Amino acid sequence: MPVDVREYTDFYASKEHATNVGIMFRGVENALQPNWLHLPVGYHGRASSVVLSGTPIRRPCGQIQKDREDPKQGSIFGACRLLDFELELGFFVGGPRNELGVPLTLEEAKERIFGVVLLNDWSARDLQAWEYVPLGPFTAKNFGTSISPWIVLYSTLVEAPGVLTEPSAGPEQQPRPLDYLLDPDYARSALDISLEVALQPQGDVVPSVISRTCSKYLYWSMPQQLTHHSITGAVMRAGDLLGTGTISGTTPDSLGSMLELSWRGSRPLTLENGDGKQRSFLQDHDTVIMTGFANVKDPSNPGSVLGRIGFGSVTGQIIPAQSPYLSK
Amino acid sequence: MPVDVREYTDFYASKEHATNVGIMFRGVENALQPNWLHLPVGYHGRASSVVLSGTPIRRPCGQIQKDREDPKQGSIFGACRLLDFELELGFFVGGPRNELGVPLTLEEAKERIFGVVLLNDWSARDLQAWEYVPLGPFTAKNFGTSISPWIVLYSTLVEAPGVLTEPSAGPEQQPRPLDYLLDPDYARSALDISLEVALQPQGDVVPSVISRTCSKYLYWSMPQQLTHHSITGAVMRAGDLLGTGTISGTTPDSLGSMLELSWRGSRPLTLENGDGKQRSFLQDHDTVIMTGFANVKDPSNPGSVLGRIGFGSVTGQIIPAQSPYLSK
Repeated sequence: MPVDVREYTDFYASKEHATNVGIMFRGVENALQPNWLHLPVGYHGRASSVVLSGTPIRRPCGQIQKDREDPKQGSIFGACRLLDFELELGFFVGGPRNELGVPLTLEEAKERIFGVVLLNDWSARDLQAWEYVPLGPFTAKNFGTSISPWIVLYSTLVEAPGVLTEPSAGPEQQPRPLDYLLDPDYARSALDISLEVALQPQGDVVPSVISRTCSKYLYWSMPQQLTHHSITGAVMRAGDLLGTGTISGTTPDSLGSMLELSWRGSRPLTLENGDGKQRSFLQDHDTVIMTGFANVKDPSNPGSVLGRIGFGSVTGQIIPAQSPYLSK
Repeated sequence: MPVDVREYTDFYASKEHATNVGIMFRGVENALQPNWLHLPVGYHGRASSVVLSGTPIRRPCGQIQKDREDPKQGSIFGACRLLDFELELGFFVGGPRNELGVPLTLEEAKERIFGVVLLNDWSARDLQAWEYVPLGPFTAKNFGTSISPWIVLYSTLVEAPGVLTEPSAGPEQQPRPLDYLLDPDYARSALDISLEVALQPQGDVVPSVISRTCSKYLYWSMPQQLTHHSITGAVMRAGDLLGTGTISGTTPDSLGSMLELSWRGSRPLTLENGDGKQRSFLQDHDTVIMTGFANVKDPSNPGSVLGRIGFGSVTGQIIPAQSPYLSK
């Protein structure tokens, strides 16, 4: 592990992802919750389960709603059937801690972001659906979060020519954020990191790419996420890890989770190198491989790529569920 | 601080509290969510904001829904108006960490609970109402969590005669919990810790007691909470702090939060030693004082109290909000 992760927080900062999930669960009319455009929605996660790329992830067991249509029927114990990945970027906080009760300003937050990693926030969708009302995701998200081993300095990313998108390329924030979240440089703050997810079932020689997207689709920037995190005065410490939330693009092949790629299982993916194999969610022994890079461009000729800043990869293989309560 | 708090998780384990909150926000018919009787509902909190008794708590600022009836009107920035305490017990995990993907059994969980403290989970109700959909409480709960300085050993509590309630005194778990949560000793597992909350506005010589309750009202026991926390395989480490959630009794004077005591502000409390002062929520310079003790009884004569195990107190005073964005 590159650092001892102090605490972990996960955001929900891609408008496309939040909209897709909203459409699936609440319909097109109410896809985005009323608060979503006003603040970076996030929740505290579990640092103890953040692991290095390559660590196998055991399919979790837990409570699953017995009857999908009728929650009053209660739950059964079982192995997760809707196991998913979430393609995210993670960023580590550095620098001195702020005092309790004294929030970071947006400018301070920009100085406090140490560096960026690839992050896979493994998710058990069926467990999540049952447990998350009203206090949010809990055991469905705390069984494993994988990160890539190399931290790419944030200062490098924002200073390297061409890694920040052109002003017109990122999203526009409408309505105008409240003052504490307002970034005059917002239009030049989107990171243009190309991201790719590949799936490799056991026995497949070549992984199949199932998604290609870009971090510029994050509506709330990393500095805005960190600023909001401390707005009530929470202490932010070196080693804190923040995840951006699933990064999804606008097209069906640029989505950052199986939930979206298979549209809740209704349109299974055919794996290009999988000899006809299909997937709606992850199966045992599947390996998920996420990679990313940013192009460094010639400032005098933005079309010409001088080189790449690589993020390496974050991988993880699903191993079968195991529990003394499964056999009963 | 008695220990370096590794991670902090908060549960919602008092049926009376969950029911009261449910009635206020969803009505009597739908007070308890369908999952509540099947699992200990909980969420990950923020360890960096756990502070020692006596630490002043700054009134937080953040986003508040502009129009209470219409979330589509968006939010304003402001100081919390509905500042609250939550009377809880906290318990620390000890012992060796479990392996990722290998949950603790209930018997193991009992061995892993190191000790118990009083805990005040300060809450900003107006911020919470706006932010918590759909991923749960976040900044409304991460600005301060106060604990008492002395950790009372859990082994002492369960072994001292009379601290565990008589089998008939605690709640009954119906429906029967799933196997992994089932405790054959459940009826003898409730801790009989007397708890009291007092409020002392600035200038009052004597604090006014506003609530007297008991930890036996926790429906989900501490071992059940810890077991459920790791059911999907989350790693639990020494120094992890788990809060039980607000502990409320069955009568109007045994409730564990201002939200319930004032019934969302509709019936302000008159402070007995406050010269006519009333409170619906906390005002600046108010001090909240929580105390607790357990009686040790003569096993051959349960009516006779041999002595007390004291928890000391957890106190905190509210200091006024401060933000460069408030003046605008």
